[in-house]
Amino acid sequence: MSLPEPSRRDTRLDPYIDAYAERTHGLTVSAVRALFAVANRPEVVSLAGGMPNIADLPREALAKAVDRLITENGTQAMQYGSGQGEPFMREKIVEVMAEEGIQAHADDVVVTCGSQQALDLVTRVFCDPGDVVLAEGPSYVGALGTFRAYQCEVVHVAMDEHGIDPVALRAALVSLKAGGKRVKFLYTIPNFQNPTGVTQTLERRRELIDIAREHDLLVIEDNPYGLLTLDAEPLPALRSMDADNVVYLGSFSKIFAPGFRVGWTLAPHAVREKLVLTQEAATLCPPVFSQFAIATYLEEFDWRSQIVTYRDMYRQRRDAMLDGLAQHMPEGTTWTVPQGGFFVWVTLPEGLDSQAMLPRAISARVAYTTGTAFYADGLGSRNMRLSFCYPTPERIIEGTRRLGEVLEQELEMHRTFGLGTQTARHYDLTTGPAPDIT
Amino acid sequence: MSLPEPSRRDTRLDPYIDAYAERTHGLTVSAVRALFAVANRPEVVSLAGGMPNIADLPREALAKAVDRLITENGTQAMQYGSGQGEPFMREKIVEVMAEEGIQAHADDVVVTCGSQQALDLVTRVFCDPGDVVLAEGPSYVGALGTFRAYQCEVVHVAMDEHGIDPVALRAALVSLKAGGKRVKFLYTIPNFQNPTGVTQTLERRRELIDIAREHDLLVIEDNPYGLLTLDAEPLPALRSMDADNVVYLGSFSKIFAPGFRVGWTLAPHAVREKLVLTQEAATLCPPVFSQFAIATYLEEFDWRSQIVTYRDMYRQRRDAMLDGLAQHMPEGTTWTVPQGGFFVWVTLPEGLDSQAMLPRAISARVAYTTGTAFYADGLGSRNMRLSFCYPTPERIIEGTRRLGEVLEQELEMHRTFGLGTQTARHYDLTTGPAPDIT
Repeated sequence: MSLPEPSRRDTRLDPYIDAYAERTHGLTVSAVRALFAVANRPEVVSLAGGMPNIADLPREALAKAVDRLITENGTQAMQYGSGQGEPFMREKIVEVMAEEGIQAHADDVVVTCGSQQALDLVTRVFCDPGDVVLAEGPSYVGALGTFRAYQCEVVHVAMDEHGIDPVALRAALVSLKAGGKRVKFLYTIPNFQNPTGVTQTLERRRELIDIAREHDLLVIEDNPYGLLTLDAEPLPALRSMDADNVVYLGSFSKIFAPGFRVGWTLAPHAVREKLVLTQEAATLCPPVFSQFAIATYLEEFDWRSQIVTYRDMYRQRRDAMLDGLAQHMPEGTTWTVPQGGFFVWVTLPEGLDSQAMLPRAISARVAYTTGTAFYADGLGSRNMRLSFCYPTPERIIEGTRRLGEVLEQELEMHRTFGLGTQTARHYDLTTGPAPDIT
Repeated sequence: MSLPEPSRRDTRLDPYIDAYAERTHGLTVSAVRALFAVANRPEVVSLAGGMPNIADLPREALAKAVDRLITENGTQAMQYGSGQGEPFMREKIVEVMAEEGIQAHADDVVVTCGSQQALDLVTRVFCDPGDVVLAEGPSYVGALGTFRAYQCEVVHVAMDEHGIDPVALRAALVSLKAGGKRVKFLYTIPNFQNPTGVTQTLERRRELIDIAREHDLLVIEDNPYGLLTLDAEPLPALRSMDADNVVYLGSFSKIFAPGFRVGWTLAPHAVREKLVLTQEAATLCPPVFSQFAIATYLEEFDWRSQIVTYRDMYRQRRDAMLDGLAQHMPEGTTWTVPQGGFFVWVTLPEGLDSQAMLPRAISARVAYTTGTAFYADGLGSRNMRLSFCYPTPERIIEGTRRLGEVLEQELEMHRTFGLGTQTARHYDLTTGPAPDIT
């Protein structure tokens, strides 16, 4: 296979190089972008992206509803709005959060341009360069990008199949404090974590809240997938257990559609105030038309049934992936069994390197995200994240078949030549990975 | 008149106070917000806000076009998109900029969540705490807010009725350099400047570009009102004279509608790359549905005629305001005569203080924005910004009549009691003013 040459731009002299802010020097374009351009070709089964499948939305009915919205309320919907988000939107968001046991007031909600912007605003409000942010190891690549953009130091806390390890969390807090570090918050995805698919058990949630109280630790609970549970009822959100120590991040991207870019944060009152002022400086106000459109959807459509439709569709895909993996993975490969969300986390047989292997996988017309993307510290080379959200069940099965073949070949090479050969071509996915959506 | 008490939140103990980032401590809620809540009552003629009047948009035809968009392309329009902005949107933006003589490539455009976010991203890419940003004195309140949010030091450069003063600009550059300061860029609004309404002459533009080249000065050209010229053809944009030293900011908020939150920046190639990475960390991607909706509008509607419609409507309002001022302002009051945009800048007779006077003006059912909001250094107390964009011509005339009466009373008080009495009730508009849109 012929891969595109690394872009010449990377080596072009940048006349502004001395003018950038300190934070900008950490931003570099990853060579893996060129690879992902290839991965997006239709002949490649991409198990790499985190794009939801929104084909099941009632498009024609939505079109009519938005038509009426513009005719009847267009002058408000297309005008500037509140920096905090429209009051009716915040009321609806409170209703959505109630599905996971959260009791909140609309006054404490701040609407954002996707929940990525909620993460950005929270980090901006709390973090100075050098501050420590704790996160599960591994954690969401887009969050790591935001923390890096604010020059935070990410310290990973070990997790297992029950979620973040409380012993490791306590140890990290004690040792960081002893080292004079300022820990600003713990960033966690309790439900169907990205990238592992792991769900924190109720017991772990309780213990996490206990630790937060003991150590005065602010917890950022990122919950984009919480309602996309595939096997059981949702567990209570951390925010439902503690309103003082938890800042909650939510999103319509997975339970409705991502293109409107509407997310939110629910924060203790004093923090909420800072977030609103920061939002005003960042955008004046979050997308107004989008808020009207989503509020219309929530008002006029049976959005709870739509979530059930999504669950049924994603359950089929998750099952296809688990079947495919069971059928096609070589011995020594293990993976998580997610009870919701979009992702399975695969651990390769010893000696294999998911990063070195990626070009060969794409040659074999299957793509995944390498494990190293989800660590700030270079770990994860034996892991890959597989997404079951976007391709059809048939394509997912075919993808795992192709991946199985690639792994067999890698193992064969490994057995023949020993360690090391697979690093001949090394792509750097740890700096500036593409956003988690393609 | 009974004004609401300052919010109790301001004095409430904030348990997170020690956890915030350095940059967050500069963010405080202004007491003037309470005043603006009153100013938004229908009985008050508000000459304070910068909200465009979008009543003339062809709402029903737009509703049908968006209906078709969702039916035919909804799955793309509601999905995640490119961090840089959709390619077809960037192509259209290049067409819009060509109206002001700018030759550009879509590859160098980055779409943002309103042009406020463009300003935020540019500041984030370039500015460390303590870096100097040059800006006209006075300048746009929302830009000053963003610069403050990144802990920049704003140094104002004097302007007159022809725009920024090149002698003052050169002097500032020399003296700041001598003082060891790092000047990151000049922020300027060449057309119908906010808040003064002043337009840079062609001669001044050329001189500004000369200075930029001599001093290696990056120029941020903010041009939301450029096509809303009321008396003559638009002058060439700074970016049309120099592609290397100018970062251009544009917006659909005033030539179409603000609620979609779509703005953009056109930047030299290397800078564009940093902006895209920063945009991904901030939002993953700018509002996708909004981009589809605006591209549909630009494709299917005669947007150039709509701008002519807007011009005719704003010209009437501008003329009403100039007539009203000529009729009702007491002797000693002067004002600018804008050739486009939304704003007139008023200088009060000596001894009057627009900030101290504001509660009494609102009592008399007229609102304006005090001049101090537009300076980072406390100047502007003898000035006010009057907006002619939103109220009808009749209301504008009535507003100037009420304002004239307030000024007469102030002058009377001033003559009777001398200086000082007008500061009995002092509202702080210099910290965290409300966004410039209500």
